[in-house]
Amino acid sequence: MVVTESISFRTQGNGEIVDITGQLERKVADSPLKDGTVTIFSPSATSSLTTIEYEPGLVHDLQELFERVAPQAIEYSHNLRWGGGNGHSHVRGALFGPSLTVPFVNKRLTLGTWQQVVFLDFDVRPHNRELVLQMIGE
Amino acid sequence: MVVTESISFRTQGNGEIVDITGQLERKVADSPLKDGTVTIFSPSATSSLTTIEYEPGLVHDLQELFERVAPQAIEYSHNLRWGGGNGHSHVRGALFGPSLTVPFVNKRLTLGTWQQVVFLDFDVRPHNRELVLQMIGE
Amino acid sequence: MVVTESISFRTQGNGEIVDITGQLERKVADSPLKDGTVTIFSPSATSSLTTIEYEPGLVHDLQELFERVAPQAIEYSHNLRWGGGNGHSHVRGALFGPSLTVPFVNKRLTLGTWQQVVFLDFDVRPHNRELVLQMIGE
Repeated sequence: MVVTESISFRTQGNGEIVDITGQLERKVADSPLKDGTVTIFSPSATSSLTTIEYEPGLVHDLQELFERVAPQAIEYSHNLRWGGGNGHSHVRGALFGPSLTVPFVNKRLTLGTWQQVVFLDFDVRPHNRELVLQMIGE
Repeated sequence: MVVTESISFRTQGNGEIVDITGQLERKVADSPLKDGTVTIFSPSATSSLTTIEYEPGLVHDLQELFERVAPQAIEYSHNLRWGGGNGHSHVRGALFGPSLTVPFVNKRLTLGTWQQVVFLDFDVRPHNRELVLQMIGE
Repeated sequence: MVVTESISFRTQGNGEIVDITGQLERKVADSPLKDGTVTIFSPSATSSLTTIEYEPGLVHDLQELFERVAPQAIEYSHNLRWGGGNGHSHVRGALFGPSLTVPFVNKRLTLGTWQQVVFLDFDVRPHNRELVLQMIGE
């Protein structure tokens, strides 16, 4: 059985890290499914999904990693061709990837105690983001 | 219901980025499934899957990121032991990962307008690549 | 049909790379499912899953990549706030991600000949790790 849902929220971008665990847990609890997997997919190439222990220190540390692997200030062909100044946002999105799959058992995500599902918004301007949640199970 | 398909194509490698969105969309449209997820899996450790806005500027920018995080010219133990000169290809493959899961709804992938599914070939020689597409849904 | 299993093992951490392919293959072979996908999920934010050709040269090369993108010795806000000295472990976990999805066909994983499923333990101390394996198929 397949159930497709979505969640939406406002972001500021620039490496913002948003904890979406609560919204995700509610969608799984409210679905007719008991056991299965949920795929969270971002229909955007300048954002990603992963997990982290969501606390301000690590939010800052992960943002420093973004800057280390894909600095904002270096030259990007994307910026030279199209403007927008978000070349770094696109390559960060490709590196971290647009989706995450998490199992749930008895309507609960199998996350660790210190593990949250986070949305990474790499773009350089605010967005209304809408994520696809697709649950498959029984 | 599970449907397993494959797509194949010729690659040149060396960080080549191949847009496979069209082939993927056709396999989903031609399957008996309406809603579900498709997992695209590369049975190879020197290649990966992700999404990006597929335009020549970003293709170049992402290739520069490959080189920044895993330069070709540094020393790799894999090369010292086995030759082949593709140590950088293997660690890039491990970093970007071998699979991607994308939901589809009403036979259409839930990709964003400026978001394409791409195959990354990190190896140093041409290959005939075959990817596993596994659709699960109803 | 959904089948949830787990595997567990002892790790030493510090970028340890554990080949879990054999354990994974046995769980798939022993399940009642013939075709489907298995999602391997680590309920921990300091560890990850990916694939690599598992040989000592590449194990070393991948560990050098960990250190290049997220060095242990730089300053992490997480360490300043909480101690523990594992800030680098957390950001590496977020970069490589907590899950991997692999199709299986006729009870066999669709891995390449030189491709193993590996668990990456980035934490700085030993752990008893337990991974969730969720198989969906028919």
